[in-house]
Amino acid sequence: MKPYKEMTQEELAAELENLRKEYKNYQKMDLKLDMSRGKPCIEQLDLSMGIMDALTSDADLFCEDGTDCRNYGGLDGIQECKELIGDMMENHPDNIIIYGNSSLNVMYDTVSRAMTHGIMGNTPWCKLDKVRFLCPSPGYDRHFAITEYFGIEMIPVPMSPTGPDMDMIEKLVSEDEAVKGMWCVPKYSNPQGYSYSDETVRRLARLRPAARDFRIFWDNAYGIHHLYDIDQDYVIEILAECKRSGNPDMVYKFASTSKITFPGSGISALATSPNNLEDIKRQLKVQTIGHDKVNQLRHVRFFGDIYGMVMHMHEHAKILRPKFEAVEEILDNNLTGLEIGTWTNPKGGYFISFETLPGCARQVVALCKKAGVKMTKAGATWPYGRDPYDTNIRIAPSYPPIEDLKVAANLFALCVKIVSVKKMLEEMQNSNA
Amino acid sequence: MKPYKEMTQEELAAELENLRKEYKNYQKMDLKLDMSRGKPCIEQLDLSMGIMDALTSDADLFCEDGTDCRNYGGLDGIQECKELIGDMMENHPDNIIIYGNSSLNVMYDTVSRAMTHGIMGNTPWCKLDKVRFLCPSPGYDRHFAITEYFGIEMIPVPMSPTGPDMDMIEKLVSEDEAVKGMWCVPKYSNPQGYSYSDETVRRLARLRPAARDFRIFWDNAYGIHHLYDIDQDYVIEILAECKRSGNPDMVYKFASTSKITFPGSGISALATSPNNLEDIKRQLKVQTIGHDKVNQLRHVRFFGDIYGMVMHMHEHAKILRPKFEAVEEILDNNLTGLEIGTWTNPKGGYFISFETLPGCARQVVALCKKAGVKMTKAGATWPYGRDPYDTNIRIAPSYPPIEDLKVAANLFALCVKIVSVKKMLEEMQNSNA
Repeated sequence: MKPYKEMTQEELAAELENLRKEYKNYQKMDLKLDMSRGKPCIEQLDLSMGIMDALTSDADLFCEDGTDCRNYGGLDGIQECKELIGDMMENHPDNIIIYGNSSLNVMYDTVSRAMTHGIMGNTPWCKLDKVRFLCPSPGYDRHFAITEYFGIEMIPVPMSPTGPDMDMIEKLVSEDEAVKGMWCVPKYSNPQGYSYSDETVRRLARLRPAARDFRIFWDNAYGIHHLYDIDQDYVIEILAECKRSGNPDMVYKFASTSKITFPGSGISALATSPNNLEDIKRQLKVQTIGHDKVNQLRHVRFFGDIYGMVMHMHEHAKILRPKFEAVEEILDNNLTGLEIGTWTNPKGGYFISFETLPGCARQVVALCKKAGVKMTKAGATWPYGRDPYDTNIRIAPSYPPIEDLKVAANLFALCVKIVSVKKMLEEMQNSNA
Repeated sequence: MKPYKEMTQEELAAELENLRKEYKNYQKMDLKLDMSRGKPCIEQLDLSMGIMDALTSDADLFCEDGTDCRNYGGLDGIQECKELIGDMMENHPDNIIIYGNSSLNVMYDTVSRAMTHGIMGNTPWCKLDKVRFLCPSPGYDRHFAITEYFGIEMIPVPMSPTGPDMDMIEKLVSEDEAVKGMWCVPKYSNPQGYSYSDETVRRLARLRPAARDFRIFWDNAYGIHHLYDIDQDYVIEILAECKRSGNPDMVYKFASTSKITFPGSGISALATSPNNLEDIKRQLKVQTIGHDKVNQLRHVRFFGDIYGMVMHMHEHAKILRPKFEAVEEILDNNLTGLEIGTWTNPKGGYFISFETLPGCARQVVALCKKAGVKMTKAGATWPYGRDPYDTNIRIAPSYPPIEDLKVAANLFALCVKIVSVKKMLEEMQNSNA
């Protein structure tokens, strides 16, 4: 099919009529589908049911070092869990704190602590006139919600397939002492599925921040969440690279098992330098006596070791891969050649990112909703929910059954076409008038 | 035996020599006992092993309302868990948020949120010159650690068997707008095991705070932690009493299952008014997607209902009661009549509180330690770790096996005698000089 922009007004009007008929048919189907959140589907959750048997009443709930996991204590996690998560995060167990069920909570607490107590002896952020964060965009809405909640000014930084715009970052970080942090999803990024290139990671590690308490919030949410076995992205391990670059304390690295076992009942972790760890533990010991050690042990016994975890992720990939490929194929079949949108083809993670023509994303999402398909709110992937171009839509293929997903993806492509054609027709009419 | 103060200098010197011989014998025993923390003992933990089988791989992990406990969501907890904890806390399920494994963490977060964002639209505490908390003392060291960490000025309020000094509290709360909060362990208080009288609760509920954002931090840590079945303390339910007194929003009430199932792996909860809940959830939804619902369901399935939980607490009592009684009997046998110390005989909770002669507590704890018995640090039960009289020692009888406990309690009584006699002799020598 030829690009829409090469069509005449009459051709476009005829196309719109056909598309609208097609849309009406979808409306009659009374759909109720959800492509809005990166939730694992039932089949994925079922993969982890074995963890419920990993510790039963006749299990030994003592650690190798004699710790009774049932009692108080163990502020930073049990050793065997640090080892497992260390292998998962590519960090030494000594550099890791194991937390509760939510890495988002750890990130929130990390910002909150910087607000009230500052980082490593620096002025608490709440005492400063202005605190800024760099936000590679599109990015993860829940990151942006945390910084917005604390009144931190967010500066969007454009993303490309190799990561965020490093020229801009180097300039802002080195010149502005108010720039205290930066959100990153370095691997299979949310929503684009991009992975930071070697150059990007090296340039990040070599930043010379104006602020001594500048920290990169490195949310490695999809570190082992590949869709393919050999054809995987690899991101250079950031803590080691920072150490090699004379910036050992510049990164807080987060991860969790939320999309490995059960999202609500996994374990989360933070890896960082000894200086940062000491700084954090001074606070952590006031906040809690320790996190859920039984659940830590449960994860260790279930997986055994990192190989067990990787094999488990292969099973996830088997479920997710066809869903991603189905969406990509449908987008390809419906939209390739029309020049009204682009999308990513990630090799891992939980999202496909779609870019509409300028000014179309909000309408596309609204049109999908009217036909019973829920997408992530347009704009959500940008700080303050404001997509300056109104182009980005996050597609989350994981949750719906594949047959539903295909229907939803077809409807989505149809909505992109309708909104694009309408837009073009309006522009033609405006320029005619 | 006659009171030490009626003894002559010679009699005391002779007594001291005997006591020291006795102490030497203890030193030879190479003891390593711990009466320092309110940790459940192994036998108590074993009571809850059944919870490990409450949810196995063939279990139904869906809630009654269809929620899949394994997936994301459920910000404030699953309904059936709110009902169970509601019965435990004597509050309506709708007034409850279920959290993670640590109520201390919830208290910390509650103070932290007030610091950064204020309470119900009031000025964030971090923007104020001075924030004060009333601290019934002796009290819980970890409460005081939270307020100290946030730079909140702590004002000790004397405790009596009916609760804190209400005249002082009424005066301070109504006159000083900087008084923003008050720590309470209303039932079987830490460390004295006192329970607030009806009058105390009513006067608290009827406070007229100068600060609109004054909140009572009501840590009902031992709400159902009785040592006896009939002979139990009862504390008037504070939220209802506050509502009746026109102060519906004045209390945050905390509880957990830490000393019901497993300390590290239980669930915690907060109960408060609808206004406060709304205020909290605005923050909570930024902090997390939800707490561990599988563990919530696990607790519900294990106990069934509040009756199951009460029966479970009977089993705890069977283990704890003889320990408390053993310590009390040893203190009685060794110290009654000597007029060198008083102690409490609580009907529940986790502690016995001991008052030495003025200026003796620190030395008693040090002497115990030298013979291998670890007590809670003297002073720990007061804000900033400063006991103005140096009299209070917290005894935690729960953890050691009863035979060890008896040895430790006898040694403790001996140390009280030695330090007291030395003190009296010094005073005699000083007044002779």
